[in-house]
Amino acid sequence: MSEKLPGYKGEALKALERLGAEAGDLLRVEKDGEIYEGILMPRSELGDDKHIVIKIRSGYNVGIRITPETRIEKKGTRAKPSFVPPPPPKQRPNLPRVTIISTGGTIASRVDYRTGAVRPAISASDLYSIVPELSEIATIDTEILFSAFSEDLTPRHWAETAKTVAKHIEKGAQGIVITHGTDTMGYTAAALSFALQNLPVPVVLVGAQRSEDRPSSDAAENLIGAVQCAATAPFAEVVVAMHQTISDEAVAIHRGTKVRKLHTSRRDAFKTVNAELLARVLNGKVVMLTDDFTPRRDDRRLVLKPEFEEKVALIKFYPGMNPKIIEWHVEEGYRGIILEGTGLGHVRRKCFPSIRKAIENDVIVAMTSQCIWGRVNMNVYANGRDLLSIGVIPLGDMLAETALVKLMWILGQTRDLEEAKNLLTKNIAHEFSSRTVEPIEPPETIRREGRN
Amino acid sequence: MSEKLPGYKGEALKALERLGAEAGDLLRVEKDGEIYEGILMPRSELGDDKHIVIKIRSGYNVGIRITPETRIEKKGTRAKPSFVPPPPPKQRPNLPRVTIISTGGTIASRVDYRTGAVRPAISASDLYSIVPELSEIATIDTEILFSAFSEDLTPRHWAETAKTVAKHIEKGAQGIVITHGTDTMGYTAAALSFALQNLPVPVVLVGAQRSEDRPSSDAAENLIGAVQCAATAPFAEVVVAMHQTISDEAVAIHRGTKVRKLHTSRRDAFKTVNAELLARVLNGKVVMLTDDFTPRRDDRRLVLKPEFEEKVALIKFYPGMNPKIIEWHVEEGYRGIILEGTGLGHVRRKCFPSIRKAIENDVIVAMTSQCIWGRVNMNVYANGRDLLSIGVIPLGDMLAETALVKLMWILGQTRDLEEAKNLLTKNIAHEFSSRTVEPIEPPETIRREGRN
Repeated sequence: MSEKLPGYKGEALKALERLGAEAGDLLRVEKDGEIYEGILMPRSELGDDKHIVIKIRSGYNVGIRITPETRIEKKGTRAKPSFVPPPPPKQRPNLPRVTIISTGGTIASRVDYRTGAVRPAISASDLYSIVPELSEIATIDTEILFSAFSEDLTPRHWAETAKTVAKHIEKGAQGIVITHGTDTMGYTAAALSFALQNLPVPVVLVGAQRSEDRPSSDAAENLIGAVQCAATAPFAEVVVAMHQTISDEAVAIHRGTKVRKLHTSRRDAFKTVNAELLARVLNGKVVMLTDDFTPRRDDRRLVLKPEFEEKVALIKFYPGMNPKIIEWHVEEGYRGIILEGTGLGHVRRKCFPSIRKAIENDVIVAMTSQCIWGRVNMNVYANGRDLLSIGVIPLGDMLAETALVKLMWILGQTRDLEEAKNLLTKNIAHEFSSRTVEPIEPPETIRREGRN
Repeated sequence: MSEKLPGYKGEALKALERLGAEAGDLLRVEKDGEIYEGILMPRSELGDDKHIVIKIRSGYNVGIRITPETRIEKKGTRAKPSFVPPPPPKQRPNLPRVTIISTGGTIASRVDYRTGAVRPAISASDLYSIVPELSEIATIDTEILFSAFSEDLTPRHWAETAKTVAKHIEKGAQGIVITHGTDTMGYTAAALSFALQNLPVPVVLVGAQRSEDRPSSDAAENLIGAVQCAATAPFAEVVVAMHQTISDEAVAIHRGTKVRKLHTSRRDAFKTVNAELLARVLNGKVVMLTDDFTPRRDDRRLVLKPEFEEKVALIKFYPGMNPKIIEWHVEEGYRGIILEGTGLGHVRRKCFPSIRKAIENDVIVAMTSQCIWGRVNMNVYANGRDLLSIGVIPLGDMLAETALVKLMWILGQTRDLEEAKNLLTKNIAHEFSSRTVEPIEPPETIRREGRN
């Protein structure tokens, strides 16, 4: 494989070699009357031999099939890896100490995206040169923990992340920021909410929906908001910091157990579900939106409980679903199943015998709703009541994703079935909202697809 | 089992027999200083022998454990099954002919809820006596097709429903209303959107989130809106008619392929996702919200394609998901898998070999997003591009639930793999929105939990 043209082969490789191009170069491609201009991207090892991939100005990648009629022109050379960033601004000694732990994802992929090179990780000096505002807010320490797409993270990564957070808090960090791919950031936020108990300082997960090289990028603003939150917020909880709306500059602070990614690409994709938003960062200030939070207390002693049981499944029900899917999980040694049922918490009656069998085999089976908003209530209809009789545990207004993570965490803590069931319905990290809370959603929620 | 006290046994049965009570009676129960008043409900065969269940004024069922200290009083007797409804209003001969097909669900369960008797079905005269306004709108014919909870409906029920709709259209119905449990109404609406091609008249699914006996019931208003739509709407498509907001009287008309239940209990639980709302019924008038619809044409010849392949699965991905789940489906003979991936359409790399194996075994694997809003784009990140290389089919902005139904339908139509794949990415019933459409959501979307 060509080192300068990673992943390219066959005709596509030949055409690029003729041009003397390498990944990271700015190309202009003319084909069928269309003109594409952008950075030549490395390809995956699984790619074919007929296309080249360039990242166009909008930030998206375009695959172009090379034919004899395709005209390619090189308009600029690769940003050199030896590129020296400007010297970081002087650190101010009296600012709060914040550690940024990077796990990967779009927010950490600026260099990758700009040059086409695979360099998803950030250092403290990279950060200061990209976002110099940070040096006004906090004294930043950094640790590169993973460089992963967030869909590849597993409960083991959650455990590692929790331990790393604990280490930095013990070393005196007054707030933690975790950069994370947005795809599974909600799951990780829930995991840390359970694994990091008795927190003395805020732990803020942050991501970006658009990479730093796109005009509409939210990376810098989200990161600044997250660091402001970690440095100065009055609470000590695990939260997610992401743009609140598509139109203004506020960064919403969501509780880690109540947040869900609800749009594939918008900057305001993350929403707090079935609860009030915890806080908002606007003009450099953290504004609390509720009085009901755990206050920051630097002398509080963190209790680290990083164990997760991986043999817990999330099963989304659909019409006609084969009950054998449940039985398969039991046979595979699964110890917990979160059902994502319909409406108030239902699955078809045909599934009842398999669910009963699972419960008889000491598998914990609990119910959430695929409606996302609202709460399960299994007392209204006969199917729900019968599921309760069988021993299915209703999980109120808990998100299905949070329920999965919580049950993984509980079964990592205890082998006692009764204790596990009690923990599942006990409110540990605000995963249940009380019945009297009126959830408030920002008025612009999921309103209109913005062009930016 | 007692006929008058279905499901009751042991101490609970004895206490009720002493009182001379039967299901449907109005009881007053005093226990631990609390007073409950409501209708005695029949119990499920799986219930215990210690509780009685009454439906209180709010419409919810409460289970009360009978102890020696519990005081029960009978305040009214059962609504008699021999109760004769008032005579139906005279039918007007010149109104459009609308058939109401009932499949079960809350909207059809008024009598059940009021008396405690199991009588979930409606007849035409029942309807006129409950909702006399209907006789002003249309000449109503009715057919009781199923009396099921909608989570128990399967692709076979979709096929039966499609055939029944076709039969009534052939007999001259100028619009069809289908009453349906809300839990899986979105799935059935998508199924009929594909199974009923070249429709001459509107087919309107309608449900209720609150049963008719509750003060906040939406049953009558939704039903009136649905019949108005079936009788007079200018379009000929499959739609869902449900309350648009919690605060006004408008009934929203959602396209069958773009609608999702997004709240467990609110009247405005159904939302059009990634598209514009098709129409609205307000003050008896159907107001179209787009010009892009198939117009009603009574002489158009319906093409009925009611076959569905049940061996299609919807698998929601979560961090750490076991790739063997995919292999199990292949071994069980599944012919299609819809993945509900993260973000723009991702699953962990560990799943790639299993997905490749599935595709090599002629299983169609396609990708949707668990974000719900937005569209998958598998060209942005390496994991997505590699999934495309393996042969996973990206499904744009199609809902995961609609994708499941569509693939079941396609594999019910053809055994030709290439034809099936082509159909999957072809826009058949508005399941894809064009990229230029700006989705509009009503501003009150999921804004605030109403008390009603």
